[in-house]
Amino acid sequence: MGADRPQGDRVPVLTAAALQRAEAEVLAARLRVVAEPTRLMLLSMIHAAPGGEASVGDLAAPIGLTQPTVSYHLRALTEAGLVARDRRGTWVFYSLVPGALQQVRDLLG
Amino acid sequence: MGADRPQGDRVPVLTAAALQRAEAEVLAARLRVVAEPTRLMLLSMIHAAPGGEASVGDLAAPIGLTQPTVSYHLRALTEAGLVARDRRGTWVFYSLVPGALQQVRDLLG
Repeated sequence: MGADRPQGDRVPVLTAAALQRAEAEVLAARLRVVAEPTRLMLLSMIHAAPGGEASVGDLAAPIGLTQPTVSYHLRALTEAGLVARDRRGTWVFYSLVPGALQQVRDLLG
Repeated sequence: MGADRPQGDRVPVLTAAALQRAEAEVLAARLRVVAEPTRLMLLSMIHAAPGGEASVGDLAAPIGLTQPTVSYHLRALTEAGLVARDRRGTWVFYSLVPGALQQVRDLLG
């Protein structure tokens, strides 16, 4: 633990620009959903896919998981608002929700 | 779960650009450390601080926590490689480690 320093007028600067607790709680909940290796790999694969979208079948083979397992993780990511689901005819495509974790992204440098 | 689609030559594209499991595991471990509201607020406050650095004393008052509690969270963030600790004389300053979560940032759009 470090020594302290007089705070003076720096405090308002810190509070004004920083995340408020309610926002931080929403972001933390999203991050808990993402903080899992398979889900990170799926997000990365969707991000890298042509057109930024992929089906369960596109994802299952390269990641070496069954389609039900991939669907389970995609459902969690969709419910957390991180991934969007678009049914077109008989195919369902998944894409990243733009800006879903923008605040986290911004503060991660 | 969505209908499948022929994968054809899209598979190599997906695998080449995507996170590999070993990288995903490291990132997931870092995200688990970050997926906590107080820690997100501290990261945000450090990011917004003048010069991109802050002491425990700078952070404790605006976030409404004791200095030992703030120190505990900063230690976890430091051990995870997300925050750097710099002692100068009797003061200790914390700053974000640039690029510590670059891969996550990149894939969060």
